Formats: sequence, structure tokens, C-alpha cells
Amino acid sequence: MSLRAIKWSENKLHVLDQLLLPGKTEYVTVTNVEEGWQVINRMQVRGAPAIAIVGCLSLATELIHSSFKDKDELLKAISEKIHYLVTARPTAVNMKRAADQLTSFSKRLHRENVSLAEMVSLVIEWCQKMLEDDVSTNKKIGDFGAESILKSVKDRKVKLLTHCNTGSLATAGYGTALGVVRSIYGSGQLAQAYCTETRPYNQGARLTAYELVFEKMPGVLICDSMAGALMNNHKIDAVVVGADRVTRNGDTANKIGTYQLAVVAKHHNVPFYVCAPTTSIDLSLAEGKDIPIEERPHTEMTDVAGVRIASPGISCWNPAFDVTPAELITGGIVTELGVFKPAELYDRLRAQKL
Amino acid sequence: MSLRAIKWSENKLHVLDQLLLPGKTEYVTVTNVEEGWQVINRMQVRGAPAIAIVGCLSLATELIHSSFKDKDELLKAISEKIHYLVTARPTAVNMKRAADQLTSFSKRLHRENVSLAEMVSLVIEWCQKMLEDDVSTNKKIGDFGAESILKSVKDRKVKLLTHCNTGSLATAGYGTALGVVRSIYGSGQLAQAYCTETRPYNQGARLTAYELVFEKMPGVLICDSMAGALMNNHKIDAVVVGADRVTRNGDTANKIGTYQLAVVAKHHNVPFYVCAPTTSIDLSLAEGKDIPIEERPHTEMTDVAGVRIASPGISCWNPAFDVTPAELITGGIVTELGVFKPAELYDRLRAQKL
Repeated sequence: MSLRAIKWSENKLHVLDQLLLPGKTEYVTVTNVEEGWQVINRMQVRGAPAIAIVGCLSLATELIHSSFKDKDELLKAISEKIHYLVTARPTAVNMKRAADQLTSFSKRLHRENVSLAEMVSLVIEWCQKMLEDDVSTNKKIGDFGAESILKSVKDRKVKLLTHCNTGSLATAGYGTALGVVRSIYGSGQLAQAYCTETRPYNQGARLTAYELVFEKMPGVLICDSMAGALMNNHKIDAVVVGADRVTRNGDTANKIGTYQLAVVAKHHNVPFYVCAPTTSIDLSLAEGKDIPIEERPHTEMTDVAGVRIASPGISCWNPAFDVTPAELITGGIVTELGVFKPAELYDRLRAQKL
Repeated sequence: MSLRAIKWSENKLHVLDQLLLPGKTEYVTVTNVEEGWQVINRMQVRGAPAIAIVGCLSLATELIHSSFKDKDELLKAISEKIHYLVTARPTAVNMKRAADQLTSFSKRLHRENVSLAEMVSLVIEWCQKMLEDDVSTNKKIGDFGAESILKSVKDRKVKLLTHCNTGSLATAGYGTALGVVRSIYGSGQLAQAYCTETRPYNQGARLTAYELVFEKMPGVLICDSMAGALMNNHKIDAVVVGADRVTRNGDTANKIGTYQLAVVAKHHNVPFYVCAPTTSIDLSLAEGKDIPIEERPHTEMTDVAGVRIASPGISCWNPAFDVTPAELITGGIVTELGVFKPAELYDRLRAQKL
């Protein structure tokens, strides 16, 4: 059994507290929407798909333990609470998409001939299904990405570089970009997986490194500043990253540092892949500049593990994400439906009615 | 009086312990060569010019407190000890150059009609002069760099990005790349100085930020991964970095991450300047691949302030430096003799008999 960051059992939601990793493995129990908002905002859970799942399941657990006088009241509660959850981390699209879909679904149930109790039950089921679907989606992403990368190198063992954490700890399980690494490892073709430490929150050093060690994959940690030197000194076959939101033209918002990695990869002719479920693709936005970019507190940069590192009095700039323009995504965008060039993304997904 | 990292008074050497900054301001007293080697190797002092000065002054203080039976014994001691000091940090050329020059100087004194006591005294004086000369050299670098950058923007206020620490804490005072920032600030033309935190040793967050705050310059700290996003979001007028060693063709070894910054600067058409005294230029090496690159302990990456950050069991790659090829040094190489394009460096310096 691989690592699980989100557990749902007996109508209770348990979230692995990623702020304590790799030192401690402790789960936080989430019993309502407010607690769901808090674990997302504090980054006890992170990763665009995982955020959406935890958000929805925090609503599910609250519904189980609440009572409503009628379907009107229930619909109003669902709609308000699920949209409140979007505000915890505004950059990732998955939570917003889930909020919109769950609201539509609830409106349909409200119109249809289902009882109040049935409506509660169907909404909860819908949320649980997100958790189940995510793992199968990720496995498809992993396999499509692996196929594309291995084909491009004619099936020799490959060296990959990844950024941030996009693994079991960022999803319901398996992972997106780290899912691709996992699939390649599974096929015996992984020579080395390099991961950046991913300042300022060290998701690479703490979480990706933890997953690589946990599954005994050949992994090497580097600092974010070393990617260029790495590509110069060791032949890297592909860079694989996740996405918080991909726009219609293929521009991609992802963890700060992704853009710079893409620039450096381009300079070294290393194929650059964005790996994301179609739920991370926002066809309503034309291009990257339309994506809201969250800025995070300065203490994330100035303090490490509660210890002040930076000089007192210094100002900081701490954007949580940056936008990589489509033209730098030279490998492709890996989804559960296949690997697309940014330019073909819109038509291919519209054909799927996404 | 600006910050001083190296103090020489009453024949004693005191070195500001940079491992304790910015939390504590404490000086280590160095009384012999072995202690000099230790403070350099442990990075209590760092920065190529500062390393050479501390190395030589550690020899000076040892000579003062030693006795020699004759000039033969003295020459042998000087030559052995000064070359031992080079091994503490092998990448920077300044210490090696100082070792060679001091050895030649000592050999001349050995041949000439000077007494044992005079020879000791002249060698000590030679070492002290390094400390004095470095500050005036840096001021020239600062002014030449400022002139070049301000001319290129037609004298409006500028935004600069720098990496690592190249200031008063890396030199005898004033600084090289940070000296350029200081000169521009002094002329009232500094809009903003951005500094990278410079993982894994955080010289930017700890030391450059400390200097910027200390002198009330408008400074903003970013993570190493944010340089690309910074150049995309804020117009940066120049990147200024130091050098541990510049080869004949202009290739430059400097703190890890410099190469990547140069790639990113090139992508954004931001002029990239290397700022270094001519003592950092090694005309004996043809190109960057000839420079030995020091690898540092993994704990520098995995632990911060004594706290383990990275997942236990993960492997690391921790090169302390990388090499930026001459073609990416688009602004020029700023020395105390002027600003040179990499291609003209060799001829210009040979004309100076360096």
C-alpha cells in the first residue's frame, strides 16, 4: 500500500499533516468546513487535486453531522460553504471547479424528486467518488507520461527532474508528475529522479524526498538554484512538473520556480512536461496572465522550522506560484486523456466536452 | 564606519563569525595557520577576497608568535603553510594567487640582503597591505560597475538583482557586486536591490540582507527559484554577481546558482555583470571546465540551523559553485581596472602584466 495523505473512513476525514513531515506522521481529523478551510490554508494539505478532495470531503463530513429543515436550506448551505472553501487557496482551479460542479449537481437534486435525506446522501457520495476517481486518473497520467518520455529516448533508462511535490501527498494517491516518475520506475527504466528542495516551503526536500525514499526510488535532492548546473553536468532527459491551473492556451500556473525551470530546460533542450488531470485545466481562462497568483506570508521565507534565518528587517517577495508560458512546455501537457501539445489542448479537450 | 568582517589590530586577527549572523555578531580570534584553515573551511569567513586575506593574516599572526633559526627555515615554513591554506577552499583563485605571490616575495627576501627579523617583518607587512588594498580595489569596482549600468539605462533609478554575498562580509570592506549596488545607492540611483537567499548556505538571506538593512538600502529578499518570475513581473536592469575564479576566456566560477541566473537573465535580456578584482582572474586557466569545483557536505542542504529539514535517507548533490560561460556574461566583467567584455579580458589584463 502506498502512502495515503487523505483517508475517509466511517464518515470521518483524516488528513496527513504535511507540515510535520518528514519528522512526524500524524493525521488531523477534519469534522467540518471551517476545519477543512484551515487545513488547506495552513498547507497541512497541499497540491491542487488534494485540496479539492479535502475541501469537498470536509463538506461531506459536516453534512453528515448537521440537520436541515428542507432541501432549500441544504442547497443554500452546500453552495455557500463549498464556495467559501475556494478562498482558502485561490490559485488552484480544482477546488473552484469542484465547487461549481457540486453546486450544479446539488441544484439538480434540488429540482428532482429526491428526498432531503437522499440528497444529503448523494452529495456525500459525490464527494467520496472524487477521492476514488483521482487515483485512477493519476495512474493514467503516469502511464501516458512514461510512454511519451520513454519513446523519446528509445527506451533506455532516464534521468528526470521534478519540482515541488506532486505525488501521493498532493493527490488522493500515486501523483501526477511524480506519478510519471513512479510509472517509469515501475517499468524499470528510472536511472535517477532529481527533486528540487522547492523553497520556501521545502515540499521537495520534505515531501518528494520522503516519497522517493519511502518507495526506494533512486532519488537525489538538489537546491532550486542547481537545476542549471545539473542539466550541464548530468544529462537530464525530461523535467516533469504538476499544475495548479492550466489555461486554454496551455499557459500553466504552478509552484514558484516552475517558470525558471522551464527557461533553463529550454536553454538545455530538455523536454518540459506539465502533468495534470483535466480538472486542473481551466478552459474559461484564455491565458496565464488571467490566473490570480497568491502571495504568501514572508515568514515562510525568513523562518525555517520556527528558526529565523533571514536578517531581521529585510523585506520579502513571496509569490506562491508563477506562470509558465505554453511555448516553454516543450514536452507536452500530460492528462488522463493523453499527452497534448499546448496548442492542441483546447480542441482536444473541447471534443471531450470538458 | 561600514561593517568589517576582518579586523587586524595589535598583531591579532579577528574574524567575524558569519555562521552566527544575523543572530549574533561575534568575532573569532585566529592565532595561527591551522585556525585560519579552520575558519575558512567551516565558512566562518567566506568570499574569495576575504578568504585570501584571512589566510595570509593567519600566517602573519603565526609568524609573529614563532621563532625561526634562520631564513631557510622561515622560507620553508611560509611556503608550506601558505599552500596548505589553499586546500581549505580550493575553488577560489585568490588564495592560491596570494600563496604564489607571497612565496615569490619571500624567496626574493631570502635571496636579498635582509635579516631574519626584517624578512619576518616585511612578510607581515605584505599580508597587512592585502587588507588595505582590497577596500580601495572594491571602491573602484563599485564605481566602474555603477557607471556602466547607469549609462545603459540613461541615469534613471535602477532595480538590481544580486546573488550570494559579495559585500563587506565577503571582502575587506565595501564589496564587489554588492559594492556596485552600494555605489549606485550612494549616487541616489538605486530603486531596489533584490537578493536571492542563496541556498543551501543562505548567504543572501543571512548576509546580503543584513548588509542591505544595516545600510538602509531598499532591499527585497527572494528565493533562488523566483528570479525568473521576478524578471517577468518587475523590470530588472542588471544582475550583478561576484566571482570565485574567472578564466582567461571570461568563464566564471561563482556560487552555485550563478549559472542558472545568467541563463534566466539572458532569456529576459537583462545584462549580466560579474564583479571581481583582478586577483580573482586566473589567466593560467584557459576555460571554465579547468576550474576545480568543490562539493560540500550534504548536511548543508538537509539541515537548517541544526534542524533536519529534508527527508531522512535522501541522497544529495551539493556543488558549492558552478561555471557561467563567458557568452552569458552580457554586461561585462567589472574589475578595478574597468569593465571588460569577456572576449577582451585577456588582452586588456595582459597589457597590465597581470
